[in-house]
Parts: sequence; C-alpha cells; structure tokens
Amino acid sequence: MVVTRRQQFATRGQGDAQDLTGAVARAVGECGIADGIVTVFVVGSTATVTTIEFEPGAVSDLNRLLDDLAPRDAEYRHHLRWHDDNGSSHVRAALMGPSVTIPFVDGKLLLGTWQQIMLLELDTRSRQREIVLQIVGD
Amino acid sequence: MVVTRRQQFATRGQGDAQDLTGAVARAVGECGIADGIVTVFVVGSTATVTTIEFEPGAVSDLNRLLDDLAPRDAEYRHHLRWHDDNGSSHVRAALMGPSVTIPFVDGKLLLGTWQQIMLLELDTRSRQREIVLQIVGD
Amino acid sequence: MVVTRRQQFATRGQGDAQDLTGAVARAVGECGIADGIVTVFVVGSTATVTTIEFEPGAVSDLNRLLDDLAPRDAEYRHHLRWHDDNGSSHVRAALMGPSVTIPFVDGKLLLGTWQQIMLLELDTRSRQREIVLQIVGD
Repeated sequence: MVVTRRQQFATRGQGDAQDLTGAVARAVGECGIADGIVTVFVVGSTATVTTIEFEPGAVSDLNRLLDDLAPRDAEYRHHLRWHDDNGSSHVRAALMGPSVTIPFVDGKLLLGTWQQIMLLELDTRSRQREIVLQIVGD
Repeated sequence: MVVTRRQQFATRGQGDAQDLTGAVARAVGECGIADGIVTVFVVGSTATVTTIEFEPGAVSDLNRLLDDLAPRDAEYRHHLRWHDDNGSSHVRAALMGPSVTIPFVDGKLLLGTWQQIMLLELDTRSRQREIVLQIVGD
Repeated sequence: MVVTRRQQFATRGQGDAQDLTGAVARAVGECGIADGIVTVFVVGSTATVTTIEFEPGAVSDLNRLLDDLAPRDAEYRHHLRWHDDNGSSHVRAALMGPSVTIPFVDGKLLLGTWQQIMLLELDTRSRQREIVLQIVGD
C-alpha cells in the first residue's frame, strides 16, 4: 500500500529550520498503514531534510558548519551561469540530500526522544516549499 | 509486506565504528521477503549509518575528516543550552543522516564486494544503540 | 510490488557527473507500478548518488567543495593499507552516501524542475558503475 501526502511550508531564507515531526507523525498515524517507511522528500535543489535534536543551539551549530563549508559570499561558477546568488545553497543541498526515510510500526515513527525531522532551507531567499510524504507499507 | 527487526549495539564513544553488514544480510535472508529494500535506521540524533569499505584505514580517514569539520572541543551553542559536550556529535549526525536504504533481490543485498554497512558512533560517550531494520518488499 | 532495474554507466574518474534522471524516469514510467518510491543505489564504496541542479557550474562548485574537504593528494591511512590512491574517494562517498530515494505518483517522479538525479564518480580512475533502481509501490 502507498499513501501520498503533500504539504506546503513557507520558509524565510538560508538557515531557516522547521520541525516537520508533528506533521509526519499525524500523516503516518492517520493513513491506515500500520507498518512501513515514510520518505520525507523536499521538492527542489536548494533545501534539505534530515533528523536533529530540534533546539535552537544545535540548529545554529549546524548552520555555522554549513557557513564554514560553503560560505554564502564565496565565488561559485553557478553564479556566472545564472547571475544567481545561491551557489552555496546548491552545494549544501547536494551534500546533504533531499530526503530522509523513517521506519514506523503500529502507526508510530521509530524516532528517538530527542530526534526530530527537520526541513532546513538553504536558499538565499524565502521560498514556498513542497514536502512530499510517501508512505509505503502494509 | 513489511518485516521489522530491532537490534542493540553497544558503542564506545565518538568514532567507534561497527560493521552491520552480517546482521542486515541475515535479517534480510531470513525474513521471507525475496525482493525489496531494507532501511537501516539508527534511533537517536548523535550517530549515523552509511556504507564504506570497512577497514581501519578508511574508517580512521573518515573520522579525521569529521574531526576537522566539527572539532569535538570547539564551542557549540548546544553546550550552552544543556551544559552538554556533544555539539560536535549533533552537527555530524545531522550532516550525515540517520539511515541508509539498500536494495535486495532473492534475499541478497546488492552491495559491492568492498561496500559494508557501518554504524558510526558520533556521541562523546558510550551508548547502547538501537538499530531498526525495516524490510519492505514482496 | 517490487521491480528491479540495473544499468551500467561508464565514468571517467573523480568528479565525473552523470545525469540519471531520464533513465530513472523511464524505468519508473514503464514498470507498471503507479505510486511508490524508487531507490537509486550505486554499487561500490567510491561513488555517490544525490540530487542537484544538473548544470556544469553547480557540479563544478560541488566538486570544489569536495576537493577542499578531502583533498585527493592528502595522506590517508587507507593508502598505507592497500597502496591505493583513493582515500579521498572513500571518505567523500561515506559522507554523501550511496543512494537517494525519490517518490513518484502516476508513474511520474516528484522532482523539482531544476532538480536532477546525479551519479557522481568519486574514485580516482575510470569505472564501470552499476546503478540499481529498486522500485517499490502499488
């Protein structure tokens, strides 16, 4: 069985983090599939989804790491092509990937207590993000 | 069809690596599902699962890279919040992700000869880790 | 239902990028499964699969980031073991992971317009790469 849910999230530029755990847990709990996996996928090439202890300190630490790895104001060949300013967004997103896959049993996500599902905006401007929850199981 | 297996692994602090390939291969071979995918997921926000050639040199090289990226003794805002010392663990885990998904056919994982499934402890202390194997297929 | 497709791709050494989107879209469109997920998995421990805006600038920017993170000519313990020269390949691959999982509905991948599926060769020599497409759904 497969159930698809799509949800929109408005984000406020590079580093903006949103906790998707509640939305994913509700979708899984209500979808009628008891056991399986949910793939949480962000459409687009300048954002990422991962798990983290969702508290402002850890999120800020991750953003600082990404700022060091791929500074926003460095030179990127992507800028030359499109006269764009989000080269840092593209390389961060390709490194981290667009999705995470979480197992669930009896309609409950098997996450740790301090482990949340996070959408992290990497683009340099506000975006309307579409998240696809693809739930597969029986 | 979905089959869930959970296994505990005792780890010995940041950088401790364990080869899960044998355990995953056995679970897939014995679960009664011929073809599908297995999601190998670590519960918690300070460890990761990936694939690597599991030999001490490559594991040590990866740990050195992570030490450079997110040094254990740097300052992290996460420390200020919880008076904790594992900020480096959280950012490494968020960057690498909590799981890997492997295809299998006829009950056999489609890994390369030199490609193993590794649990890498990122926390700064010993942990009892729960690994979920969620096997989906037919 | 599960459908497995395997395809070979010849690559030309570290940093060579190939756009898999067309091949994956065709396999999903023709497999007879309407809705589900496809896991795009590269066999081996010195390559990666992710999503990116597949244009030469962004790919070059990502390669530069990886060159900075894990320089090809640095010293790696993996070299001491095998007298090999691809330590940088192993750590990059372990960091990025071997696969990406993409949802599809009505036989169509739910990718963004500027989001492509990329095989990135990380090894230091030309390789014949096997990509497994494991399609799970109903």
